Amino acid sequence: MKGLRDQVELALQAIVPGDWPVPARLNEAIRYSLDAGGKRLRPILALAAAECVAGDEVAARRAVPFAAAIEMIHTYSLIHDDLPAMDNDDYRRGRLTNHKVFGEAMAILAGDGLLTHAFYVASTASGLGVPAQRVLSFVSELARYAGLPGMVGGQASDMLGEQGITTLDELEYIHLHKTSDLIACSLRAGGHAAEASGEQLAALELFGRNIGLAFQIQDDILDLVGDETKLGKPLKSDEKQGKVTYPYLIGLAESQRRVSELTAEAIVAIREAGLRRTELLEGIADAMMNRDH
Amino acid sequence: MKGLRDQVELALQAIVPGDWPVPARLNEAIRYSLDAGGKRLRPILALAAAECVAGDEVAARRAVPFAAAIEMIHTYSLIHDDLPAMDNDDYRRGRLTNHKVFGEAMAILAGDGLLTHAFYVASTASGLGVPAQRVLSFVSELARYAGLPGMVGGQASDMLGEQGITTLDELEYIHLHKTSDLIACSLRAGGHAAEASGEQLAALELFGRNIGLAFQIQDDILDLVGDETKLGKPLKSDEKQGKVTYPYLIGLAESQRRVSELTAEAIVAIREAGLRRTELLEGIADAMMNRDH
Repeated sequence: MKGLRDQVELALQAIVPGDWPVPARLNEAIRYSLDAGGKRLRPILALAAAECVAGDEVAARRAVPFAAAIEMIHTYSLIHDDLPAMDNDDYRRGRLTNHKVFGEAMAILAGDGLLTHAFYVASTASGLGVPAQRVLSFVSELARYAGLPGMVGGQASDMLGEQGITTLDELEYIHLHKTSDLIACSLRAGGHAAEASGEQLAALELFGRNIGLAFQIQDDILDLVGDETKLGKPLKSDEKQGKVTYPYLIGLAESQRRVSELTAEAIVAIREAGLRRTELLEGIADAMMNRDH
Repeated sequence: MKGLRDQVELALQAIVPGDWPVPARLNEAIRYSLDAGGKRLRPILALAAAECVAGDEVAARRAVPFAAAIEMIHTYSLIHDDLPAMDNDDYRRGRLTNHKVFGEAMAILAGDGLLTHAFYVASTASGLGVPAQRVLSFVSELARYAGLPGMVGGQASDMLGEQGITTLDELEYIHLHKTSDLIACSLRAGGHAAEASGEQLAALELFGRNIGLAFQIQDDILDLVGDETKLGKPLKSDEKQGKVTYPYLIGLAESQRRVSELTAEAIVAIREAGLRRTELLEGIADAMMNRDH
Protein backbone atom coordinates (compact mmCIF):
# COMPACT_ATOMS: atom_id res chain seq x y z
CA MET A 1 0.00 0.00 0.00
CA LYS A 2 2.78 2.39 1.00
CA GLY A 3 4.67 1.55 -2.21
CA LEU A 4 1.61 2.26 -4.34
CA ARG A 5 0.99 5.55 -2.60
CA ASP A 6 4.60 6.64 -3.09
CA GLN A 7 4.31 5.99 -6.83
CA VAL A 8 1.19 8.16 -6.95
CA GLU A 9 2.83 11.02 -5.03
CA LEU A 10 5.92 10.95 -7.27
CA ALA A 11 3.79 11.01 -10.41
CA LEU A 12 1.65 13.90 -9.10
CA GLN A 13 4.80 15.92 -8.40
CA ALA A 14 5.85 15.64 -12.03
CA ILE A 15 2.62 16.23 -13.93
CA VAL A 16 3.67 19.57 -15.47
CA PRO A 17 6.93 19.54 -17.49
CA GLY A 18 9.26 22.24 -16.14
CA ASP A 19 9.68 24.06 -19.45
CA TRP A 20 5.96 24.60 -20.09
CA PRO A 21 4.83 28.24 -20.04
CA VAL A 22 2.35 27.96 -17.15
CA PRO A 23 1.71 31.18 -15.17
CA ALA A 24 3.34 30.81 -11.72
CA ARG A 25 0.21 31.76 -9.78
CA LEU A 26 -1.90 29.21 -11.66
CA ASN A 27 0.68 26.53 -10.95
CA GLU A 28 0.65 27.45 -7.24
CA ALA A 29 -3.12 27.19 -7.12
CA ILE A 30 -2.98 23.72 -8.65
CA ARG A 31 -0.19 22.54 -6.34
CA TYR A 32 -2.02 23.91 -3.29
CA SER A 33 -4.91 21.52 -3.86
CA LEU A 34 -2.96 18.58 -5.30
CA ASP A 35 -0.55 18.64 -2.35
CA ALA A 36 -3.30 18.91 0.27
CA GLY A 37 -2.70 15.28 1.17
CA GLY A 38 -5.90 13.42 0.56
CA LYS A 39 -6.19 9.69 0.98
CA ARG A 40 -5.27 9.06 -2.70
CA LEU A 41 -7.91 6.35 -2.60
CA ARG A 42 -8.74 6.42 -6.32
CA PRO A 43 -5.19 6.24 -7.71
CA ILE A 44 -4.20 3.57 -5.20
CA LEU A 45 -7.21 1.51 -6.29
CA ALA A 46 -6.12 1.90 -9.93
CA LEU A 47 -2.60 0.62 -9.22
CA ALA A 48 -3.89 -2.19 -6.98
CA ALA A 49 -6.33 -3.29 -9.71
CA ALA A 50 -3.50 -3.47 -12.26
CA GLU A 51 -1.41 -5.54 -9.87
CA CYS A 52 -4.33 -7.87 -9.07
CA VAL A 53 -4.98 -8.52 -12.76
CA ALA A 54 -1.36 -9.04 -13.85
CA GLY A 55 0.01 -10.55 -10.64
CA ASP A 56 3.09 -8.32 -10.68
CA GLU A 57 4.18 -4.72 -10.13
CA VAL A 58 5.10 -3.96 -13.73
CA ALA A 59 1.46 -3.51 -14.65
CA ALA A 60 0.96 -1.21 -11.67
CA ARG A 61 3.78 1.03 -12.93
CA ARG A 62 2.10 1.19 -16.34
CA ALA A 63 -1.12 2.30 -14.67
CA VAL A 64 0.51 5.29 -12.96
CA PRO A 65 -0.49 7.88 -15.62
CA PHE A 66 -4.10 6.70 -15.45
CA ALA A 67 -4.01 6.82 -11.64
CA ALA A 68 -2.56 10.35 -11.62
CA ALA A 69 -5.17 11.50 -14.16
CA ILE A 70 -7.99 10.25 -11.95
CA GLU A 71 -6.59 11.99 -8.85
CA MET A 72 -6.30 15.23 -10.85
CA ILE A 73 -9.95 14.93 -11.87
CA HIS A 74 -10.95 14.21 -8.28
CA THR A 75 -8.97 17.27 -7.13
CA TYR A 76 -10.51 19.61 -9.72
CA SER A 77 -13.98 18.43 -8.67
CA LEU A 78 -13.25 19.36 -5.05
CA ILE A 79 -12.00 22.83 -6.06
CA HIS A 80 -15.12 23.53 -8.11
CA ASP A 81 -17.50 21.97 -5.55
CA ASP A 82 -16.14 24.28 -2.85
CA LEU A 83 -16.83 27.47 -4.87
CA PRO A 84 -19.29 30.02 -3.44
CA ALA A 85 -21.81 29.27 -6.22
CA MET A 86 -21.67 25.55 -5.38
CA ASP A 87 -21.22 24.26 -1.78
CA ASN A 88 -19.58 27.51 -0.60
CA ASP A 89 -17.05 25.86 1.71
CA ASP A 90 -14.24 27.83 3.38
CA TYR A 91 -12.32 24.80 4.68
CA ARG A 92 -11.37 21.39 3.36
CA ARG A 93 -9.15 18.90 5.19
CA GLY A 94 -8.57 21.58 7.82
CA ARG A 95 -7.10 24.12 5.36
CA LEU A 96 -8.64 27.06 3.57
CA THR A 97 -10.27 26.08 0.28
CA ASN A 98 -8.62 27.01 -3.02
CA HIS A 99 -10.82 30.00 -3.79
CA LYS A 100 -10.32 31.42 -0.27
CA VAL A 101 -6.56 31.54 -0.95
CA PHE A 102 -6.34 32.28 -4.68
CA GLY A 103 -9.68 33.94 -5.42
CA GLU A 104 -12.63 32.59 -7.35
CA ALA A 105 -11.31 33.27 -10.85
CA MET A 106 -8.04 31.44 -10.21
CA ALA A 107 -9.87 28.55 -8.51
CA ILE A 108 -12.15 28.12 -11.53
CA LEU A 109 -9.11 28.16 -13.84
CA ALA A 110 -7.09 25.81 -11.62
CA GLY A 111 -9.99 23.34 -11.81
CA ASP A 112 -10.33 23.73 -15.57
CA GLY A 113 -6.56 23.31 -15.96
CA LEU A 114 -6.38 20.16 -13.82
CA LEU A 115 -9.34 18.61 -15.61
CA THR A 116 -7.86 19.33 -19.05
CA HIS A 117 -4.35 18.27 -18.09
CA ALA A 118 -5.62 14.93 -16.73
CA PHE A 119 -6.17 13.83 -20.31
CA TYR A 120 -2.63 14.80 -21.27
CA VAL A 121 -1.22 12.77 -18.37
CA ALA A 122 -3.46 9.79 -19.24
CA SER A 123 -2.20 9.82 -22.82
CA THR A 124 1.43 9.41 -21.67
CA ALA A 125 0.67 5.78 -20.70
CA SER A 126 1.34 4.75 -24.29
CA GLY A 127 4.99 5.70 -23.70
CA LEU A 128 5.09 3.11 -20.88
CA GLY A 129 3.96 0.24 -23.06
CA VAL A 130 0.16 0.35 -22.70
CA PRO A 131 -1.25 -0.31 -26.21
CA ALA A 132 -2.72 2.82 -27.87
CA GLN A 133 -6.15 1.20 -28.15
CA ARG A 134 -6.22 0.55 -24.40
CA VAL A 135 -5.15 4.11 -23.61
CA LEU A 136 -7.92 5.34 -25.85
CA SER A 137 -10.46 3.09 -24.10
CA PHE A 138 -9.39 4.63 -20.81
CA VAL A 139 -9.60 8.20 -22.17
CA SER A 140 -13.10 7.50 -23.42
CA GLU A 141 -14.19 5.94 -20.12
CA LEU A 142 -12.62 8.67 -18.01
CA ALA A 143 -14.56 11.28 -20.01
CA ARG A 144 -17.76 9.30 -19.50
CA TYR A 145 -17.42 8.40 -15.81
CA ALA A 146 -16.18 11.87 -14.84
CA GLY A 147 -18.46 13.72 -17.26
CA LEU A 148 -22.07 14.41 -18.19
CA PRO A 149 -23.55 10.97 -17.45
CA GLY A 150 -21.12 10.50 -14.52
CA MET A 151 -19.60 12.75 -11.88
CA VAL A 152 -20.65 16.10 -13.40
CA GLY A 153 -24.18 14.77 -13.92
CA GLY A 154 -24.28 13.50 -10.33
CA GLN A 155 -23.13 16.84 -8.98
CA ALA A 156 -25.76 18.63 -11.09
CA SER A 157 -28.51 16.32 -9.78
CA ASP A 158 -27.32 17.01 -6.28
CA MET A 159 -27.47 20.79 -6.77
CA LEU A 160 -30.82 20.65 -8.55
CA GLY A 161 -32.52 18.31 -6.10
CA GLU A 162 -31.01 19.58 -2.86
CA GLN A 163 -34.34 20.58 -1.40
CA GLY A 164 -36.36 17.63 -2.51
CA ILE A 165 -34.72 14.23 -1.90
CA THR A 166 -37.16 11.89 -0.18
CA THR A 167 -36.35 8.38 -1.30
CA LEU A 168 -33.36 6.08 -1.06
CA ASP A 169 -33.45 5.62 -4.85
CA GLU A 170 -32.93 9.35 -5.44
CA LEU A 171 -30.08 9.51 -2.94
CA GLU A 172 -28.46 6.42 -4.43
CA TYR A 173 -28.70 7.84 -7.96
CA ILE A 174 -26.76 10.93 -6.89
CA HIS A 175 -24.05 9.00 -5.06
CA LEU A 176 -23.67 6.41 -7.79
CA HIS A 177 -22.80 9.17 -10.23
CA LYS A 178 -21.18 11.73 -7.96
CA THR A 179 -18.84 9.28 -6.22
CA SER A 180 -19.03 5.68 -7.40
CA ASP A 181 -18.56 6.37 -11.10
CA LEU A 182 -15.04 7.77 -10.67
CA ILE A 183 -14.12 4.96 -8.27
CA ALA A 184 -15.41 2.35 -10.74
CA CYS A 185 -13.38 4.16 -13.41
CA SER A 186 -10.24 3.84 -11.23
CA LEU A 187 -10.63 0.08 -11.06
CA ARG A 188 -11.20 -0.20 -14.80
CA ALA A 189 -8.16 2.05 -15.35
CA GLY A 190 -5.94 -0.49 -13.63
CA GLY A 191 -7.63 -3.24 -15.60
CA HIS A 192 -6.92 -1.52 -18.94
CA ALA A 193 -3.27 -0.92 -18.03
CA ALA A 194 -2.92 -4.65 -17.27
CA GLU A 195 -4.87 -5.61 -20.42
CA ALA A 196 -7.70 -7.25 -18.47
CA SER A 197 -10.44 -9.25 -20.23
CA GLY A 198 -13.98 -7.89 -20.55
CA GLU A 199 -15.13 -10.18 -17.76
CA GLN A 200 -12.36 -9.00 -15.43
CA LEU A 201 -13.17 -5.35 -16.22
CA ALA A 202 -16.82 -5.98 -15.34
CA ALA A 203 -15.86 -7.56 -12.00
CA LEU A 204 -13.49 -4.66 -11.21
CA GLU A 205 -16.25 -2.22 -12.06
CA LEU A 206 -18.75 -3.94 -9.75
CA PHE A 207 -16.13 -3.95 -6.99
CA GLY A 208 -15.58 -0.22 -7.53
CA ARG A 209 -19.24 0.65 -7.64
CA ASN A 210 -19.96 -1.22 -4.41
CA ILE A 211 -17.06 0.14 -2.39
CA GLY A 212 -17.78 3.60 -3.81
CA LEU A 213 -21.31 3.50 -2.48
CA ALA A 214 -20.12 1.96 0.82
CA PHE A 215 -17.56 4.80 1.05
CA GLN A 216 -20.30 7.39 0.72
CA ILE A 217 -22.56 5.75 3.30
CA GLN A 218 -19.54 5.50 5.61
CA ASP A 219 -19.00 9.27 5.14
CA ASP A 220 -22.56 9.89 6.27
CA ILE A 221 -22.05 7.60 9.29
CA LEU A 222 -18.77 9.25 10.31
CA ASP A 223 -20.43 12.66 10.13
CA LEU A 224 -22.77 11.43 12.88
CA VAL A 225 -20.58 9.25 15.11
CA GLY A 226 -16.97 9.97 14.03
CA ASP A 227 -14.10 11.78 15.73
CA GLU A 228 -13.91 15.51 14.90
CA THR A 229 -10.13 15.68 15.23
CA LYS A 230 -9.56 12.81 12.82
CA LEU A 231 -12.19 14.05 10.38
CA GLY A 232 -10.81 17.60 10.43
CA LYS A 233 -14.33 19.07 10.54
CA PRO A 234 -17.17 19.42 13.04
CA LEU A 235 -19.64 16.55 13.45
CA LYS A 236 -23.25 16.73 12.21
CA SER A 237 -22.36 19.19 9.46
CA ASP A 238 -24.73 17.29 7.13
CA GLU A 239 -27.64 17.91 9.49
CA LYS A 240 -26.71 21.59 9.87
CA GLN A 241 -26.66 21.99 6.08
CA GLY A 242 -29.99 20.19 5.79
CA LYS A 243 -28.41 17.37 3.73
CA VAL A 244 -30.33 14.15 3.31
CA THR A 245 -28.13 11.17 4.29
CA TYR A 246 -28.36 7.40 4.56
CA PRO A 247 -28.73 7.38 8.37
CA TYR A 248 -31.46 10.03 8.00
CA LEU A 249 -33.37 7.87 5.52
CA ILE A 250 -32.74 4.32 6.81
CA GLY A 251 -31.21 4.71 10.28
CA LEU A 252 -27.69 4.25 11.61
CA ALA A 253 -27.78 0.46 12.15
CA GLU A 254 -29.20 -0.26 8.71
CA SER A 255 -26.60 2.09 7.16
CA GLN A 256 -23.82 0.15 8.87
CA ARG A 257 -25.31 -3.15 7.68
CA ARG A 258 -25.40 -1.80 4.12
CA VAL A 259 -21.69 -0.90 4.25
CA SER A 260 -20.81 -4.47 5.29
CA GLU A 261 -23.07 -6.01 2.68
CA LEU A 262 -21.76 -3.88 -0.21
CA THR A 263 -18.16 -4.62 0.81
CA ALA A 264 -18.81 -8.38 1.00
CA GLU A 265 -20.43 -8.36 -2.46
CA ALA A 266 -17.48 -6.42 -3.85
CA ILE A 267 -15.03 -9.03 -2.59
CA VAL A 268 -17.07 -11.94 -3.97
CA ALA A 269 -17.13 -10.27 -7.41
CA ILE A 270 -13.35 -10.05 -7.74
CA ARG A 271 -12.76 -13.51 -6.22
CA GLU A 272 -14.87 -15.03 -8.97
CA ALA A 273 -13.24 -13.13 -11.86
CA GLY A 274 -10.03 -15.12 -12.20
CA LEU A 275 -7.61 -12.36 -11.14
CA ARG A 276 -4.04 -13.43 -10.31
CA ARG A 277 -4.25 -11.84 -6.85
CA THR A 278 -7.12 -10.33 -4.96
CA GLU A 279 -5.57 -9.77 -1.49
CA LEU A 280 -4.51 -6.21 -2.26
CA LEU A 281 -8.00 -5.06 -3.29
CA GLU A 282 -9.60 -7.04 -0.46
CA GLY A 283 -7.30 -5.33 2.02
CA ILE A 284 -8.27 -1.90 0.71
CA ALA A 285 -11.98 -2.72 0.88
CA ASP A 286 -11.59 -3.86 4.51
CA ALA A 287 -9.56 -0.78 5.45
CA MET A 288 -12.20 1.47 3.89
CA MET A 289 -14.98 -0.24 5.81
CA ASN A 290 -13.12 0.22 9.09
CA ARG A 291 -11.75 3.74 8.52
CA ASP A 292 -12.22 6.54 11.03
CA HIS A 293 -11.76 9.53 8.69
CA MET B 1 -17.67 25.99 -46.63
CA LYS B 2 -21.42 25.49 -46.20
CA GLY B 3 -20.97 21.71 -46.47
CA LEU B 4 -18.28 21.74 -43.78
CA ARG B 5 -20.41 23.83 -41.46
CA ASP B 6 -23.39 21.53 -41.90
CA GLN B 7 -21.25 18.53 -40.89
CA VAL B 8 -20.17 20.39 -37.75
CA GLU B 9 -23.75 21.34 -36.81
CA LEU B 10 -24.98 17.77 -37.31
CA ALA B 11 -22.16 16.37 -35.16
CA LEU B 12 -22.80 18.91 -32.39
CA GLN B 13 -26.49 17.95 -32.32
CA ALA B 14 -25.57 14.34 -31.60
CA ILE B 15 -22.78 14.64 -29.03
CA VAL B 16 -24.74 13.12 -26.13
CA PRO B 17 -26.21 9.64 -26.74
CA GLY B 18 -29.95 9.71 -26.01
CA ASP B 19 -29.88 6.91 -23.42
CA TRP B 20 -27.26 8.52 -21.17
CA PRO B 21 -28.49 9.56 -17.73
CA VAL B 22 -27.78 13.30 -18.02
CA PRO B 23 -29.96 15.60 -15.84
CA ALA B 24 -32.35 17.48 -18.15
CA ARG B 25 -31.46 20.93 -16.80
CA LEU B 26 -27.72 20.29 -17.30
CA ASN B 27 -28.38 19.18 -20.85
CA GLU B 28 -30.43 22.35 -21.49
CA ALA B 29 -27.62 24.53 -20.18
CA ILE B 30 -25.15 22.84 -22.52
CA ARG B 31 -27.45 23.08 -25.54
CA TYR B 32 -28.19 26.74 -24.80
CA SER B 33 -24.54 27.66 -25.34
CA LEU B 34 -23.70 25.09 -28.03
CA ASP B 35 -26.69 26.18 -30.13
CA ALA B 36 -25.98 29.91 -29.74
CA GLY B 37 -24.77 29.95 -33.34
CA GLY B 38 -21.17 31.06 -33.31
CA LYS B 39 -19.06 31.21 -36.44
CA ARG B 40 -17.83 27.61 -35.92
CA LEU B 41 -14.45 28.89 -37.09
CA ARG B 42 -12.34 26.28 -35.27
CA PRO B 43 -14.20 23.14 -36.36
CA ILE B 44 -14.49 24.41 -39.94
CA LEU B 45 -10.72 24.97 -39.95
CA ALA B 46 -10.18 21.41 -38.71
CA LEU B 47 -12.28 19.91 -41.50
CA ALA B 48 -10.73 22.19 -44.12
CA ALA B 49 -7.24 21.21 -42.98
CA ALA B 50 -8.08 17.51 -43.33
CA GLU B 51 -9.42 18.11 -46.84
CA CYS B 52 -6.38 20.17 -47.83
CA VAL B 53 -4.01 17.41 -46.70
CA ALA B 54 -5.85 14.46 -48.22
CA GLY B 55 -7.32 16.20 -51.26
CA ASP B 56 -10.75 14.67 -50.70
CA GLU B 57 -13.78 14.87 -48.41
CA VAL B 58 -13.36 11.45 -46.80
CA ALA B 59 -10.61 12.76 -44.55
CA ALA B 60 -12.80 15.72 -43.57
CA ARG B 61 -15.53 13.33 -42.43
CA ARG B 62 -12.99 11.47 -40.29
CA ALA B 63 -12.00 14.76 -38.66
CA VAL B 64 -15.57 15.54 -37.54
CA PRO B 65 -15.18 14.16 -33.97
CA PHE B 66 -12.01 16.21 -33.49
CA ALA B 67 -13.73 19.30 -34.88
CA ALA B 68 -16.74 18.86 -32.59
CA ALA B 69 -14.47 18.33 -29.57
CA ILE B 70 -12.67 21.62 -30.26
CA GLU B 71 -15.94 23.54 -30.61
CA MET B 72 -17.12 22.05 -27.29
CA ILE B 73 -13.91 23.22 -25.61
CA HIS B 74 -14.30 26.67 -27.15
CA THR B 75 -17.91 26.80 -25.91
CA TYR B 76 -17.03 25.76 -22.35
CA SER B 77 -14.31 28.45 -22.25
CA LEU B 78 -16.87 31.12 -23.18
CA ILE B 79 -19.29 29.92 -20.46
CA HIS B 80 -16.59 30.04 -17.78
CA ASP B 81 -15.08 33.33 -19.05
CA ASP B 82 -18.47 35.03 -18.74
CA LEU B 83 -18.91 34.04 -15.05
CA PRO B 84 -19.18 36.85 -12.48
CA ALA B 85 -15.78 35.89 -10.98
CA MET B 86 -14.16 36.14 -14.43
CA ASP B 87 -15.28 38.73 -17.03
CA ASN B 88 -18.76 39.11 -15.49
CA ASP B 89 -20.62 39.44 -18.79
CA ASP B 90 -24.42 39.44 -18.99
CA TYR B 91 -24.64 39.14 -22.76
CA ARG B 92 -22.88 37.19 -25.49
CA ARG B 93 -23.83 37.20 -29.17
CA GLY B 94 -26.83 39.32 -28.21
CA ARG B 95 -28.29 36.71 -25.80
CA LEU B 96 -28.09 36.39 -22.02
CA THR B 97 -24.99 34.49 -20.91
CA ASN B 98 -25.30 30.95 -19.58
CA HIS B 99 -25.09 31.85 -15.89
CA LYS B 100 -27.71 34.60 -16.27
CA VAL B 101 -30.18 31.97 -17.50
CA PHE B 102 -29.18 28.83 -15.56
CA GLY B 103 -27.41 30.25 -12.51
CA GLU B 104 -23.73 30.15 -11.65
CA ALA B 105 -23.60 26.59 -10.31
CA MET B 106 -25.18 25.13 -13.42
CA ALA B 107 -22.96 27.28 -15.69
CA ILE B 108 -19.83 26.01 -13.94
CA LEU B 109 -21.07 22.41 -14.30
CA ALA B 110 -22.13 22.91 -17.93
CA GLY B 111 -18.60 24.12 -18.67
CA ASP B 112 -17.00 21.24 -16.78
CA GLY B 113 -19.29 18.79 -18.55
CA LEU B 114 -18.57 20.15 -22.05
CA LEU B 115 -14.83 20.16 -21.40
CA THR B 116 -14.85 16.57 -20.12
CA HIS B 117 -17.17 15.31 -22.83
CA ALA B 118 -14.98 16.81 -25.56
CA PHE B 119 -12.45 14.05 -24.89
CA TYR B 120 -15.14 11.39 -25.20
CA VAL B 121 -16.22 12.80 -28.56
CA ALA B 122 -12.60 13.03 -29.76
CA SER B 123 -12.01 9.37 -28.90
CA THR B 124 -14.85 8.27 -31.19
CA ALA B 125 -12.69 9.14 -34.23
CA SER B 126 -11.10 5.71 -33.99
CA GLY B 127 -14.48 4.24 -34.97
CA LEU B 128 -14.30 6.25 -38.23
CA GLY B 129 -10.96 4.81 -39.28
CA VAL B 130 -8.46 7.24 -37.73
CA PRO B 131 -5.60 5.07 -36.34
CA ALA B 132 -5.62 4.81 -32.52
CA GLN B 133 -2.14 6.35 -32.29
CA ARG B 134 -3.30 9.44 -34.24
CA VAL B 135 -6.39 9.82 -32.07
CA LEU B 136 -4.15 9.64 -29.03
CA SER B 137 -1.81 12.28 -30.49
CA PHE B 138 -4.81 14.54 -30.92
CA VAL B 139 -6.10 13.88 -27.38
CA SER B 140 -2.67 14.74 -26.01
CA GLU B 141 -2.40 17.92 -28.10
CA LEU B 142 -5.94 19.05 -27.31
CA ALA B 143 -5.17 18.73 -23.59
CA ARG B 144 -1.97 20.74 -24.07
CA TYR B 145 -3.27 23.51 -26.36
CA ALA B 146 -6.49 23.95 -24.39
CA GLY B 147 -4.88 23.43 -21.00
CA LEU B 148 -2.29 24.73 -18.55
CA PRO B 149 0.38 25.85 -21.06
CA GLY B 150 -2.32 26.86 -23.58
CA MET B 151 -5.78 28.39 -23.36
CA VAL B 152 -6.27 28.05 -19.59
CA GLY B 153 -2.77 29.47 -18.98
CA GLY B 154 -3.49 32.36 -21.37
CA GLN B 155 -6.75 33.16 -19.61
CA ALA B 156 -4.98 33.04 -16.23
CA SER B 157 -2.27 35.44 -17.48
CA ASP B 158 -4.97 37.74 -18.75
CA MET B 159 -6.76 37.78 -15.38
CA LEU B 160 -3.54 38.16 -13.41
CA GLY B 161 -2.06 40.90 -15.55
CA GLU B 162 -5.19 42.85 -16.42
CA GLN B 163 -4.02 46.04 -14.80
CA GLY B 164 -0.43 45.97 -15.94
CA ILE B 165 0.05 45.21 -19.64
CA THR B 166 2.36 47.75 -21.20
CA THR B 167 4.22 46.04 -24.00
CA LEU B 168 3.26 44.33 -27.23
CA ASP B 169 5.15 41.21 -26.11
CA GLU B 170 2.96 40.80 -23.04
CA LEU B 171 -0.22 41.30 -25.04
CA GLU B 172 0.97 38.87 -27.72
CA TYR B 173 1.84 36.23 -25.10
CA ILE B 174 -1.72 36.31 -23.78
CA HIS B 175 -3.36 36.14 -27.19
CA LEU B 176 -1.03 33.41 -28.44
CA HIS B 177 -2.18 31.18 -25.59
CA LYS B 178 -5.71 32.41 -25.04
CA THR B 179 -6.75 32.30 -28.69
CA SER B 180 -4.11 31.07 -31.13
CA ASP B 181 -3.28 27.82 -29.35
CA LEU B 182 -6.76 26.36 -29.84
CA ILE B 183 -6.86 27.55 -33.45
CA ALA B 184 -3.45 25.98 -34.12
CA CYS B 185 -4.80 22.81 -32.48
CA SER B 186 -7.78 22.84 -34.88
CA LEU B 187 -5.47 22.84 -37.88
CA ARG B 188 -3.34 20.03 -36.44
CA ALA B 189 -6.54 18.10 -35.65
CA GLY B 190 -7.44 18.03 -39.33
CA GLY B 191 -3.86 17.08 -40.13
CA HIS B 192 -3.93 14.11 -37.75
CA ALA B 193 -7.26 12.87 -39.12
CA ALA B 194 -5.75 12.93 -42.65
CA GLU B 195 -2.49 11.33 -41.41
CA ALA B 196 -0.36 14.35 -42.33
CA SER B 197 3.44 14.26 -42.15
CA GLY B 198 5.34 16.10 -39.42
CA GLU B 199 6.28 18.83 -41.89
CA GLN B 200 2.67 19.31 -42.96
CA LEU B 201 1.54 19.45 -39.32
CA ALA B 202 4.13 22.16 -38.63
CA ALA B 203 2.92 24.23 -41.62
CA LEU B 204 -0.71 23.83 -40.53
CA GLU B 205 0.26 24.91 -37.02
CA LEU B 206 2.03 28.04 -38.28
CA PHE B 207 -0.99 28.85 -40.44
CA GLY B 208 -3.25 28.45 -37.40
CA ARG B 209 -1.07 30.49 -35.10
CA ASN B 210 -0.86 33.38 -37.57
CA ILE B 211 -4.54 33.56 -38.44
CA GLY B 212 -5.36 33.12 -34.74
CA LEU B 213 -3.34 36.19 -33.87
CA ALA B 214 -4.72 38.08 -36.87
CA PHE B 215 -8.22 37.12 -35.69
CA GLN B 216 -7.57 38.62 -32.29
CA ILE B 217 -6.14 41.87 -33.68
CA GLN B 218 -9.14 42.06 -36.02
CA ASP B 219 -11.43 41.70 -32.96
CA ASP B 220 -9.70 44.71 -31.39
CA ILE B 221 -10.05 46.68 -34.63
CA LEU B 222 -13.75 45.83 -35.04
CA ASP B 223 -14.40 46.95 -31.47
CA LEU B 224 -13.20 50.40 -32.55
CA VAL B 225 -14.49 50.80 -36.11
CA GLY B 226 -17.02 47.95 -36.61
CA ASP B 227 -20.80 47.92 -36.99
CA GLU B 228 -22.66 47.50 -33.68
CA THR B 229 -25.61 45.67 -35.24
CA LYS B 230 -23.40 43.11 -36.95
CA LEU B 231 -21.17 42.68 -33.89
CA GLY B 232 -24.16 42.26 -31.57
CA LYS B 233 -22.49 44.46 -28.92
CA PRO B 234 -21.74 48.15 -28.39
CA LEU B 235 -18.52 49.61 -29.87
CA LYS B 236 -15.55 50.62 -27.73
CA SER B 237 -16.37 48.08 -25.03
CA ASP B 238 -12.63 47.32 -24.70
CA GLU B 239 -11.93 50.95 -23.86
CA LYS B 240 -14.79 51.08 -21.36
CA GLN B 241 -13.44 47.98 -19.62
CA GLY B 242 -9.93 49.43 -19.59
CA LYS B 243 -8.62 46.59 -21.80
CA VAL B 244 -5.28 47.02 -23.49
CA THR B 245 -5.59 46.31 -27.24
CA TYR B 246 -3.43 46.29 -30.36
CA PRO B 247 -4.77 49.62 -31.67
CA TYR B 248 -4.14 51.10 -28.22
CA LEU B 249 -0.50 49.96 -28.25
CA ILE B 250 0.47 50.30 -31.92
CA GLY B 251 -2.30 52.34 -33.55
CA LEU B 252 -5.13 51.42 -35.92
CA ALA B 253 -3.20 51.54 -39.21
CA GLU B 254 -0.31 49.44 -37.90
CA SER B 255 -2.83 46.95 -36.47
CA GLN B 256 -4.47 46.62 -39.88
CA ARG B 257 -1.06 46.16 -41.53
CA ARG B 258 -0.25 43.40 -39.03
CA VAL B 259 -3.46 41.51 -39.88
CA SER B 260 -2.52 41.54 -43.59
CA GLU B 261 1.04 40.50 -42.92
CA LEU B 262 0.13 37.59 -40.61
CA THR B 263 -2.44 36.35 -43.12
CA ALA B 264 0.05 36.51 -46.01
CA GLU B 265 2.64 34.56 -44.00
CA ALA B 266 0.03 31.95 -43.11
CA ILE B 267 -0.80 31.39 -46.76
CA VAL B 268 2.87 31.10 -47.78
CA ALA B 269 3.42 28.45 -45.08
CA ILE B 270 0.74 26.09 -46.36
CA ARG B 271 1.60 26.68 -50.03
CA GLU B 272 5.11 25.44 -49.35
CA ALA B 273 4.10 22.33 -47.37
CA GLY B 274 3.06 20.07 -50.23
CA LEU B 275 -0.65 19.86 -49.37
CA ARG B 276 -2.94 18.46 -52.06
CA ARG B 277 -5.15 21.56 -51.99
CA THR B 278 -4.73 24.87 -50.26
CA GLU B 279 -7.62 26.91 -51.76
CA LEU B 280 -10.04 26.03 -48.99
CA LEU B 281 -7.75 27.26 -46.19
CA GLU B 282 -6.68 30.29 -48.21
CA GLY B 283 -10.33 31.22 -48.74
CA ILE B 284 -11.02 31.01 -45.00
CA ALA B 285 -7.96 33.15 -44.20
CA ASP B 286 -9.14 35.81 -46.66
CA ALA B 287 -12.70 35.74 -45.33
CA MET B 288 -11.41 36.15 -41.79
CA MET B 289 -9.27 39.12 -42.75
CA ASN B 290 -12.24 40.82 -44.40
CA ARG B 291 -14.94 39.92 -41.86
CA ASP B 292 -17.24 42.53 -40.30
CA HIS B 293 -18.24 40.60 -37.15
